[in-house]
Amino acid sequence: MHELPVCEFLKLEVAGPRLNLIFNRPDQRNAINSQMGAEFAAVVDWLEATPEVRVVVLRGAGGHFCAGGDIKERRNMADDIVTVDSDPIMERNAAAGMAFLKFEHLPQTTIAVVEGSAFGGGMGYACLADITIVAEGARMGMPETTLGVAPAQIAPYVVKRIGLTRARQLALTGERFDGAKAFEYGIAQYLCADEDIDTTLEDVVARVLRCGPKANAATKAIMLKVGSLPEEEMVRFSAAKFSELNRSDEGKEGQSAFAEKRKPAWQLTGSEAKG
Amino acid sequence: MHELPVCEFLKLEVAGPRLNLIFNRPDQRNAINSQMGAEFAAVVDWLEATPEVRVVVLRGAGGHFCAGGDIKERRNMADDIVTVDSDPIMERNAAAGMAFLKFEHLPQTTIAVVEGSAFGGGMGYACLADITIVAEGARMGMPETTLGVAPAQIAPYVVKRIGLTRARQLALTGERFDGAKAFEYGIAQYLCADEDIDTTLEDVVARVLRCGPKANAATKAIMLKVGSLPEEEMVRFSAAKFSELNRSDEGKEGQSAFAEKRKPAWQLTGSEAKG
Amino acid sequence: MHELPVCEFLKLEVAGPRLNLIFNRPDQRNAINSQMGAEFAAVVDWLEATPEVRVVVLRGAGGHFCAGGDIKERRNMADDIVTVDSDPIMERNAAAGMAFLKFEHLPQTTIAVVEGSAFGGGMGYACLADITIVAEGARMGMPETTLGVAPAQIAPYVVKRIGLTRARQLALTGERFDGAKAFEYGIAQYLCADEDIDTTLEDVVARVLRCGPKANAATKAIMLKVGSLPEEEMVRFSAAKFSELNRSDEGKEGQSAFAEKRKPAWQLTGSEAKG
Repeated sequence: MHELPVCEFLKLEVAGPRLNLIFNRPDQRNAINSQMGAEFAAVVDWLEATPEVRVVVLRGAGGHFCAGGDIKERRNMADDIVTVDSDPIMERNAAAGMAFLKFEHLPQTTIAVVEGSAFGGGMGYACLADITIVAEGARMGMPETTLGVAPAQIAPYVVKRIGLTRARQLALTGERFDGAKAFEYGIAQYLCADEDIDTTLEDVVARVLRCGPKANAATKAIMLKVGSLPEEEMVRFSAAKFSELNRSDEGKEGQSAFAEKRKPAWQLTGSEAKG
Repeated sequence: MHELPVCEFLKLEVAGPRLNLIFNRPDQRNAINSQMGAEFAAVVDWLEATPEVRVVVLRGAGGHFCAGGDIKERRNMADDIVTVDSDPIMERNAAAGMAFLKFEHLPQTTIAVVEGSAFGGGMGYACLADITIVAEGARMGMPETTLGVAPAQIAPYVVKRIGLTRARQLALTGERFDGAKAFEYGIAQYLCADEDIDTTLEDVVARVLRCGPKANAATKAIMLKVGSLPEEEMVRFSAAKFSELNRSDEGKEGQSAFAEKRKPAWQLTGSEAKG
Repeated sequence: MHELPVCEFLKLEVAGPRLNLIFNRPDQRNAINSQMGAEFAAVVDWLEATPEVRVVVLRGAGGHFCAGGDIKERRNMADDIVTVDSDPIMERNAAAGMAFLKFEHLPQTTIAVVEGSAFGGGMGYACLADITIVAEGARMGMPETTLGVAPAQIAPYVVKRIGLTRARQLALTGERFDGAKAFEYGIAQYLCADEDIDTTLEDVVARVLRCGPKANAATKAIMLKVGSLPEEEMVRFSAAKFSELNRSDEGKEGQSAFAEKRKPAWQLTGSEAKG
């Protein structure tokens, strides 16, 4: 495993097949400034090259998930000089969008743990993970429009997660909502009382680690392709992945273990995965 | 503001930043005939050119939303002569579809208020608005197939709103359902008792008017693009919109007002918005 | 009507406008082996050429829907020789995918009746039908990843049915769930007590047979196109279907019957449809 990026505003903890990726600017409710955004992008690049990590847990320090973009920093940038060749606001925003896109396509299974505030970009991260756990007391929303700006890079992930209509309604009214609504809307797939969030997380991590890592990576890759390939091409893409997995050591081991009524080899590493 | 189109079957009320667009053929439960369809298209064109209007409220006169197409008129058209160059049923249907498409992409935030009957094309309008409010006593459905025809131009909006499967099930069974089901299926984002529909509407309008008009228009434009652009192009499209908004007077005002803990200028027009 | 394919592992019953298509390997909970897959593909081809059949009921023999792929058979195939020209696992998987795709696009209205086990490919079939009825006691899930393989050909249908996020969560955790959850997730559109599944099915079949067969086929075709055509092309495609239906004998009969307050001719065949 190569070295983790050095970060100021993200706390990184590797434990066996698991990375805890923690937004760590608790005095600002983990609001994302330029540097935190760049650090997130560096961790995503590191994850792409680190298949030993099988599960990523995205969480905030200090009881809040992430309050969104750092408005003060952004307001100051609005007066930056734009030239024919350079628009720093656009460039930074596009870089954030590219990191989101790479994060969505990571081979690891990603889990967001949402408690406290999750607004704007924070709601974006909640919609970006494969699986989201939300505490009943969470507070979420996209207040961007009430500030005269737009939830721009997160829009695709919100729309894919909760549909075009609920996404539009939430963005065009700036409405805030709690964890129970986030579950009802489909942002989260698990809802729990605030005090049960750690046990819920460990249950979900354990479930994920029972699955084959290559199988999960291939399943994500196939599901993320749906709708972007013509249907018959999709059939061929899926069949190639299926055959590759079936012939792999992991697939043979998994199906043999099933026939022999024993645990497959990859589950033996499960005990390493405590956070 | 240029002049409103003259309409016989639509009632139009402008109040400050708000247009009430009212289906007004109450003796026919606001069924859509050819002329009402043409009037709707003219109002959509007017809205495209009228950014002073920020919110559109779509509603029916006389306690019903809209009973759908005018079956008698349509049955008579079925015997019209089709030539190599002309198919009047197809042309009228395609014109309705183009008006739906333009309405979906309007820069204004659109709100449908559904009470009483909303069948066929009426259900289509309910699925077309950015935000839909439904009264518990509403009656909805797509009965087209029971008449040997299809919910053709509304299909994309129903599918985008409630998914391919619920849309197919409702259309292929001709099933009718009430307001609570419409909310559960995701057609509506707000559900209320029949007698609370006006106060619910005014609450939603007030929420929308707290948001910046350019911010809402850009957010709609971004969300409506999702899935139609390659992912990296989507990142660039969103970044360009984001930068443009941040540098605009509206974005600067909104973020400054936030930092200074005061209301942004555009909210001062809210009192003009009573219906 | 031409002759039905001869099948060993599928039981086929034609009753008037209805085909009962029954997975019939009850000692294996109707697990799909190569031959059953090939038989299913042959029945799909037969249905494409048999418009007299208007509704297809997909069900399992012996109280279970379908336990998924035959793991033992598949494990043995994993050692088959792959050459430059031939990969039998990929070919068989792609053939299954093509049969799924054809089934989705059948002109008939398809209904899946899910009770007992519906795992893997069985869950795929449940997501493939136009309409799914689920018994509360059903047990469903995608356990493929726990065996080191992927729910490959069913992925598009699961994603289209319940969204990218719920699909990923279920696949990446291998979680099992019951009929009530399947209804909540949107896999099924009707939920009933185990003992009410037959009456629920007959109600749904009766509703479908009240709809015009060409109208239902055209509605399916339009809805399945949504998202795959540019928007203005979609308008023209739908308008052409709409005009064709309106001018057809079925459309004229349906709209005349409506005006004359009588049943359309196609409903008179309903009594033939008992299962």
